[in-house]
Amino acid sequence: MIDVSAELRPVCLQLAAQAKDAARQLACVRTDVKDRWLRATADALVDRQADLLQANSHDLEQARADGLSEAMLDRLRLTPARIAAMAEGLRAVAALPDPVGRIIEGGVRPNGLLVQKVGVPLGVILFLYESRPNVTTDAAGLCLKSGNAVILRGGKEAQHTNAHLHALLTQTLAQLGLPAHAVQRVPTTAREAVGILLTLDQYIDLVIPRGGESLIRRVVAEARMPVLKHYRGNCHIYVDAAADLDMAERIIINAKCQRPAVCNAVESLLVHQAIAAGFVPRLARALHERGVEIRGCDLTRSLASGIATATEADYAAEYNDLIVSLKVVENLDEAIVHIERFGSGHTDAIITNDLAAARRFAHMVDSAAVMVNASTRFNDGYELGLGAEIGISTDKFHARGPCGLNELTSYKYIVQGDGQLRS
Amino acid sequence: MIDVSAELRPVCLQLAAQAKDAARQLACVRTDVKDRWLRATADALVDRQADLLQANSHDLEQARADGLSEAMLDRLRLTPARIAAMAEGLRAVAALPDPVGRIIEGGVRPNGLLVQKVGVPLGVILFLYESRPNVTTDAAGLCLKSGNAVILRGGKEAQHTNAHLHALLTQTLAQLGLPAHAVQRVPTTAREAVGILLTLDQYIDLVIPRGGESLIRRVVAEARMPVLKHYRGNCHIYVDAAADLDMAERIIINAKCQRPAVCNAVESLLVHQAIAAGFVPRLARALHERGVEIRGCDLTRSLASGIATATEADYAAEYNDLIVSLKVVENLDEAIVHIERFGSGHTDAIITNDLAAARRFAHMVDSAAVMVNASTRFNDGYELGLGAEIGISTDKFHARGPCGLNELTSYKYIVQGDGQLRS
Repeated sequence: MIDVSAELRPVCLQLAAQAKDAARQLACVRTDVKDRWLRATADALVDRQADLLQANSHDLEQARADGLSEAMLDRLRLTPARIAAMAEGLRAVAALPDPVGRIIEGGVRPNGLLVQKVGVPLGVILFLYESRPNVTTDAAGLCLKSGNAVILRGGKEAQHTNAHLHALLTQTLAQLGLPAHAVQRVPTTAREAVGILLTLDQYIDLVIPRGGESLIRRVVAEARMPVLKHYRGNCHIYVDAAADLDMAERIIINAKCQRPAVCNAVESLLVHQAIAAGFVPRLARALHERGVEIRGCDLTRSLASGIATATEADYAAEYNDLIVSLKVVENLDEAIVHIERFGSGHTDAIITNDLAAARRFAHMVDSAAVMVNASTRFNDGYELGLGAEIGISTDKFHARGPCGLNELTSYKYIVQGDGQLRS
Repeated sequence: MIDVSAELRPVCLQLAAQAKDAARQLACVRTDVKDRWLRATADALVDRQADLLQANSHDLEQARADGLSEAMLDRLRLTPARIAAMAEGLRAVAALPDPVGRIIEGGVRPNGLLVQKVGVPLGVILFLYESRPNVTTDAAGLCLKSGNAVILRGGKEAQHTNAHLHALLTQTLAQLGLPAHAVQRVPTTAREAVGILLTLDQYIDLVIPRGGESLIRRVVAEARMPVLKHYRGNCHIYVDAAADLDMAERIIINAKCQRPAVCNAVESLLVHQAIAAGFVPRLARALHERGVEIRGCDLTRSLASGIATATEADYAAEYNDLIVSLKVVENLDEAIVHIERFGSGHTDAIITNDLAAARRFAHMVDSAAVMVNASTRFNDGYELGLGAEIGISTDKFHARGPCGLNELTSYKYIVQGDGQLRS
């Protein structure tokens, strides 16, 4: 039997050491050079899409032969419109302010020292993802603009597409005199390579796994370096006694139906008992009309027809589909306790016109984003004003919620004096 | 043989679960209640010091019997003056602004959504430390003020002192109606307890190990949750060709001699060749007069007497003592490369009146704090304006440099709308 790890170890070590070296150079590259690379890559993507589409069709053929589902094939598929969107994504990142060198805080101390807290890159980021090829350019663009070197590891099923994208990304790096190892790709599909990379904390500063909860748990268990985690999005909307019911209905429909497969779609609805009799029937009708399956508590089932019985598993579920759980609660505090028990700390909303209730909900619910009279779908890097995002963190350490350019940076203190001594 | 881990596991689980529960309550405690607890604890420390001193003398006796060094005994020892300083530390934390609920950023989005990024506690902090008893009250005060529950695990040699301090801390919690499990202590000196706690990432949000590099490496290897790390402080001062040599001498003496055992003391001096002949002899004289041993490169040895030969190990060393390494460099860039190779990313300084050199050094040196014409000793929470600190991070993730109250918090987004939908 071949010891795969022994063969892969030097490959991984070289990859990581090269990335560290590139990161050191990248940290000092000026914004205009980075932006030029982003725009040149966007142009190259569009200009040379014929080759890219061919590589993609190669992956699609193989995926079809392997019996992947139509949904999986759709994720993997590139089209001219999707390539144009990838290019637009890179141009949007070019238009964002550079997080490196930004002054986060600063001031003069009583002894005259000028203290400035300044944004710096994290260093080397290992990015693990699945089949969508657009993640390759999104991740490379955000990492490079924030001055970080990135090691990309996409899904096996997208390997030809990603190899082509990687060649294109590095070619534009070389044209502009940027370090070629700023964007690298794990050159093997062997699973063991990831295990080895996760131990190389002398080179790799952060891992971002984008995928299912089991992938993330595996990475957390093995990684010696920090992990930016996005576990689950079990988002709630609580309709308070003092809610505007028209608004509540509109927001629920938006949060459930506008894009049901994403992490900030609502999965669970809580309704105050005082308005349940009036609201549940119209809500059920509105949801049923849009093809949403409802699983509810006994009380909701007595108020409207066509509602299945909700189990505890339903209250905990992230459906990512046109299904929603529905429960009547006695009051605001029962809603808060329910969210604490079943929620995932991602996004939770209250619909109310009662100021005290809004304040209490916003204060007590411990989620990355708490919405008052707005759709859960707004927990998104672009919508919250961060520009692009690389993911939404359900963690509390370093970054929480949408992670944009700033969240991919650290900082240093630059202290200027004129001979100050410590006494 | 008894399976210690099997016995300890339920104890650790209970401890961690209780902490999580306390953290949930603490997150919503008002600032004035937390400050009252800090002041009441400070008063109790001073008022009831007789019992505390007795517990401490118990530890000291045992430590003497175990043959601990005089330096170790001194670390362990409490005196009325030291107790008064501990009380003052708690009162200083009470006087700092509450990081929980502070608005970090905010604004109105084009669609009218009001977005606020608000400070929240991290949750549960496991704090591992050594023999100094003042760390017990410092850590408890900073964690509680930042709304976090803390699990304390001090050195075995301080166990009676720490048990007494813990009783005092929890008694004042109970008096003010705060959750008793907000400050807990690992109730066993068994080493295995730490190993178990490091796997409980469902309850514990952060570990802070304060101790030697080997302890920290062990914690990083075992912990499932993030670790706030302080590895080493190998701090440099580079004296540029354009330095004010009087200022350089004063700063070097301050950085080396004012408190040589701490992490922000200077350990390595780099001198530009253009000024070496004039500066090295006077610097050597000034250092020797203060009892500092110098280990230098061949060129420095030819310029002054009494300088031993520096090895690579010397350039890498954190002496924490009255020893310093000294090297002549060709230019600024050689100094930067040397710091990159041997430094620890903690604190590095340049002494110069050349603006371009100062800018390049501050930009290129990747350390938590870069000083221009100031002593390395200023990398400290109080000196940089953070108030108190729980340690200095040599990490780049979450917090870098001094960690005060803000660095013990995360944030959430609170988004207020009037019915906005995502389109």
